[in-house]
Amino acid sequence: MSTSFPTGPVVPATSTRQGLGVSEVSLDPSGFWGLRQASNAGATLQHCLEWMERLGWIENFDRVARGETTLSRPGWQFSDSEIYKLLEAMAWELGRRPDASLAAVFDALVDRVGAAQDDDGYLNTAYGHAGLPPRYSDMAMGHELYNTGHLLQAGVARIRTGHDDRLAQMARRAADQVCEEFADGGRDAICGHPEIEVALVEAGRAFGEHRYIEQASLFVERRGRGTLAVRPLLSAEYFQDDIPVRQATVLRGHAVRALYLSAGAFDVAIDTDDHALAGAVAEQWQSTVARRTYLTGGMGSRHQDEGFGDDWELPADRAYCETCAGVASVMLSWRLYLATGDSRYPDLIERTLFNVVATSPSEDGRSFFYANPLHQREAGASASAGVNNRAEGGVRAPWFEVSCCPTNVARTVASLGAYVAAVDDQGIVVLQYAAGEIRADGFVLRVETRYPDEGTVRVRIIAAPESESRLRLRIPGWADSATVRVNADQVTHAAPGWADIRRTFEPGDEVLLELPLAPRLSWPDVRIDAVRGTVAVERGPLVLCLESTDLPPGARIEDVRIDSELALSALADGANARGIMVTPTPDADILPFGKARSIPSHSRPVELTLVPYHRWAERGPAAMRIFIPVTSR
Amino acid sequence: MSTSFPTGPVVPATSTRQGLGVSEVSLDPSGFWGLRQASNAGATLQHCLEWMERLGWIENFDRVARGETTLSRPGWQFSDSEIYKLLEAMAWELGRRPDASLAAVFDALVDRVGAAQDDDGYLNTAYGHAGLPPRYSDMAMGHELYNTGHLLQAGVARIRTGHDDRLAQMARRAADQVCEEFADGGRDAICGHPEIEVALVEAGRAFGEHRYIEQASLFVERRGRGTLAVRPLLSAEYFQDDIPVRQATVLRGHAVRALYLSAGAFDVAIDTDDHALAGAVAEQWQSTVARRTYLTGGMGSRHQDEGFGDDWELPADRAYCETCAGVASVMLSWRLYLATGDSRYPDLIERTLFNVVATSPSEDGRSFFYANPLHQREAGASASAGVNNRAEGGVRAPWFEVSCCPTNVARTVASLGAYVAAVDDQGIVVLQYAAGEIRADGFVLRVETRYPDEGTVRVRIIAAPESESRLRLRIPGWADSATVRVNADQVTHAAPGWADIRRTFEPGDEVLLELPLAPRLSWPDVRIDAVRGTVAVERGPLVLCLESTDLPPGARIEDVRIDSELALSALADGANARGIMVTPTPDADILPFGKARSIPSHSRPVELTLVPYHRWAERGPAAMRIFIPVTSR
Repeated sequence: MSTSFPTGPVVPATSTRQGLGVSEVSLDPSGFWGLRQASNAGATLQHCLEWMERLGWIENFDRVARGETTLSRPGWQFSDSEIYKLLEAMAWELGRRPDASLAAVFDALVDRVGAAQDDDGYLNTAYGHAGLPPRYSDMAMGHELYNTGHLLQAGVARIRTGHDDRLAQMARRAADQVCEEFADGGRDAICGHPEIEVALVEAGRAFGEHRYIEQASLFVERRGRGTLAVRPLLSAEYFQDDIPVRQATVLRGHAVRALYLSAGAFDVAIDTDDHALAGAVAEQWQSTVARRTYLTGGMGSRHQDEGFGDDWELPADRAYCETCAGVASVMLSWRLYLATGDSRYPDLIERTLFNVVATSPSEDGRSFFYANPLHQREAGASASAGVNNRAEGGVRAPWFEVSCCPTNVARTVASLGAYVAAVDDQGIVVLQYAAGEIRADGFVLRVETRYPDEGTVRVRIIAAPESESRLRLRIPGWADSATVRVNADQVTHAAPGWADIRRTFEPGDEVLLELPLAPRLSWPDVRIDAVRGTVAVERGPLVLCLESTDLPPGARIEDVRIDSELALSALADGANARGIMVTPTPDADILPFGKARSIPSHSRPVELTLVPYHRWAERGPAAMRIFIPVTSR
Repeated sequence: MSTSFPTGPVVPATSTRQGLGVSEVSLDPSGFWGLRQASNAGATLQHCLEWMERLGWIENFDRVARGETTLSRPGWQFSDSEIYKLLEAMAWELGRRPDASLAAVFDALVDRVGAAQDDDGYLNTAYGHAGLPPRYSDMAMGHELYNTGHLLQAGVARIRTGHDDRLAQMARRAADQVCEEFADGGRDAICGHPEIEVALVEAGRAFGEHRYIEQASLFVERRGRGTLAVRPLLSAEYFQDDIPVRQATVLRGHAVRALYLSAGAFDVAIDTDDHALAGAVAEQWQSTVARRTYLTGGMGSRHQDEGFGDDWELPADRAYCETCAGVASVMLSWRLYLATGDSRYPDLIERTLFNVVATSPSEDGRSFFYANPLHQREAGASASAGVNNRAEGGVRAPWFEVSCCPTNVARTVASLGAYVAAVDDQGIVVLQYAAGEIRADGFVLRVETRYPDEGTVRVRIIAAPESESRLRLRIPGWADSATVRVNADQVTHAAPGWADIRRTFEPGDEVLLELPLAPRLSWPDVRIDAVRGTVAVERGPLVLCLESTDLPPGARIEDVRIDSELALSALADGANARGIMVTPTPDADILPFGKARSIPSHSRPVELTLVPYHRWAERGPAAMRIFIPVTSR
């Protein structure tokens, strides 16, 4: 096996599988993801920069450089991380498609941030300078190592895209400082918000510094021992400081924290050949996905603590499903895939990308969802032009009081090419279907598709290794009647999992994958109380939803029933279903509970138009639901 | 009509109906509520006192008196209110049953608190003294007027129980200070946590100071205009500062805040003869009860913001149903009853008392529920002996980080007699059935009953007015086959609402009320997604629940189905039902959603033992549910 640098965000030390570099994949700007990359590059990056400039979050670095820090600095203690995530997004974008003007913006921002770095590598605008609390004085909530972790990830993105530049060196110096401060025998502490772990491992890989990985291992092992000072109204579980990582059986507490930690712990396990730790994380993934994950791939059932709920606690209306948790879930699944080659991981990545990550940004790339509920009872107020004080509201917002999601979307979309394919010792694996070109390991593949609107994926071989090799295509778990044809060969059925084509490929060879995109019903496990008696409709990788926008005038979304026994028909990218509108029985009692089983009356048929969930509220504020009660007949 | 002082907590200026004083009702210590009053007096009052002493919340007053205040004072900015609520509880308890030793404890505590009162009447341990922020410098979250409101209510309890003592005078001086500070032309502001409004009206009534009521009116009218500074992550709705009270149509935001405000606004409306305002509050009650209230009477669907949810958003598992919101709901309904005489209000009071207020304290009166969910998926950890850092946990806790509920339970239970009956211009009305004696308006009634375990209520006339008068009995909304018999008269059917017996009563007369206590099914409105396909069982005023404690070994509560077509049988205070245990279909997909409708298999019959919800977790941590999925056949 050979891997070529530059490469992608995750490069395990010991793996038969490697992801590609962002420059090895070009997505067509007309395709689903290429369009989003264009919007990200053309609008979101600048949008984030402007907001953070306007709010003074960038000037915080200038203030440190000028020695003018005060407690009244604008932004939360984790606002530095937003600048780092933006830098990471810019780094991937520059790696994907060099652009002199963006490079100049990037360099100028790096210079402003770099001017705030202390001589020993410490870099933070909320701690450790005159008038601010001392360094590491609030490990539970100070987010210093969390911020540093994002700085490291930005530096890694530069290394991975071929630039050992000032940002990369700032990251290296910051990582050195962390190791000096927190090594064995040093400050025996962890950060309340995991992130440094996953960042240190990748920094260790990128910079060839194994002690970074050892430091990450220390942070992972120190966790779960109740050492973080728990603030009033919080809990050790919130921080994953309740149970050591290798003893836990399911993810719990704050979802983004839990997922970042798991990604870091898995990286540590891989690079230290720790099968027990890797197995523990894989088991946690499995139980979390099986019992605490939404149909959209969203994770986090509770607004309180932005946290996971108990098993089967999956309310559609109060689903939190933070966009960042979607990003973090992709990060974790990607690592599990690279280590195992199991198709369940890219399956979940696809689900999460299309139904969480793609749901957050508006088409213009200038407003975002933070929480991604599966049911909106009341249409949100008109989109605000300003900062959304809450993570919710039913409409996308330009910016948030806590604004972690826009920059997380930006870095993920910019680096998305890296998740499209992988190489292993047999050849190349196409994991996600997006129109574009993939160049790796002697292969040049041209992927032509209008997926997910259409199910036809044509993979044209532009170049291939000269000896026999394997082209592996992922057949999604939902695709029960996929077919593959190579050139003029016979059409063969491809079961969910992998379709392997093994031959000595010639330029001009063509592999035709047909994925079934007929709308299909998805039934919840009977243990999920919140959506009992309902069904959802999916089409290919897309979860569909019903918006009040598409209902007859005067109809209320809570009065819709779907006829799950009648066939669904496909629309361009959604589906039509037969339903009825019901009139609820009038209130008989003072409470909404009665002695008789309530049977809605006065039903009339209605054609239900179901649209992709990721587009909801694009046509204005709307009530919305993914799970629709079924008619009882 | 005549009312006699001492009297109860609420005495509207213009009402044909008045509640009784706590000394006018004696509940037998063997009865449901008498037992709880005994436990409250014998354990809870001292328990609260000890905890607040231990935590330094009482010493905060000493520190003010000694001029030793610092920012590092223990307790939240609202901890003073807990001492005031405890004083109110003691005041009612002393009014109910004089006790020299309790009186000494009370006086000593009043002295310590009183020593902290400023010359101008201001009394607060977190603001307005050396080293603390200035008075009224944080109207949104400072809780100063909230604290003062509870001081006023404690003072009113003293007046209402015949003591115009130091505490009453402290309250009067504090009310004077509020009026001077916040009158028209003064500080044009409101408190983020309503409470001062309801307190000022009652203080105005108790002290005969109409300007207190005018001040309450000012606070009510100033609200809903967005003047409170909204903290990051909060909203104006949280504070009910989004819509003026008289324009709102439903309760929203923080539940306790919304209910206290409504009670105060209604009091203002009554005493100022403001029909529009009274009507607005009554409409808000109705829409809130019809669409945002749980079967238990609990209010507040969200842990986030301790708040109401949208219409039909009534998750059983994440129900917040704060104990204090139950107390506040009783306060509001009581005022609506006194003004209207409508039986729906005491109906909701009964439901809330038995299923929220009675659920909170343990039998020994030394631990409490804060939140009262209707579904606990995983048994809580063993009860802690210390402070519960969270409002949740599935087990009662001795004390909480925010510990508003224990003292709120204490003052409510101590004054509970006041809600048992009322007098009007026709005679006496028995509203709640509890063994004991009621003495008011020429009547002496001896109530003999084992309600709610048994449905027989015997009202013996010990004394009665000499002319014809009316004895009115409330027939609960759920009682569809109640009967009444007077002496040897014929048994008559009594429909839900009121049963009136009009005659010249003689000592020795006896009225026999039979309420039907057969267990019954309660079906949720079809618009409540969270409990679709389930049913609850009630018995008389009690909501029943299924605890994992009563399941066969190895059975999981999520696998229980109830057969809603088979008859329920009554137990001593619960019910038996036929059910089945199902084995869920094994996980076919990686997510808990599948292509086929999930049909649980391997069912086996099981006898379900349902117990009163208010007793749940008394036998140790347990999983629990009120709404049980029905068998689909």
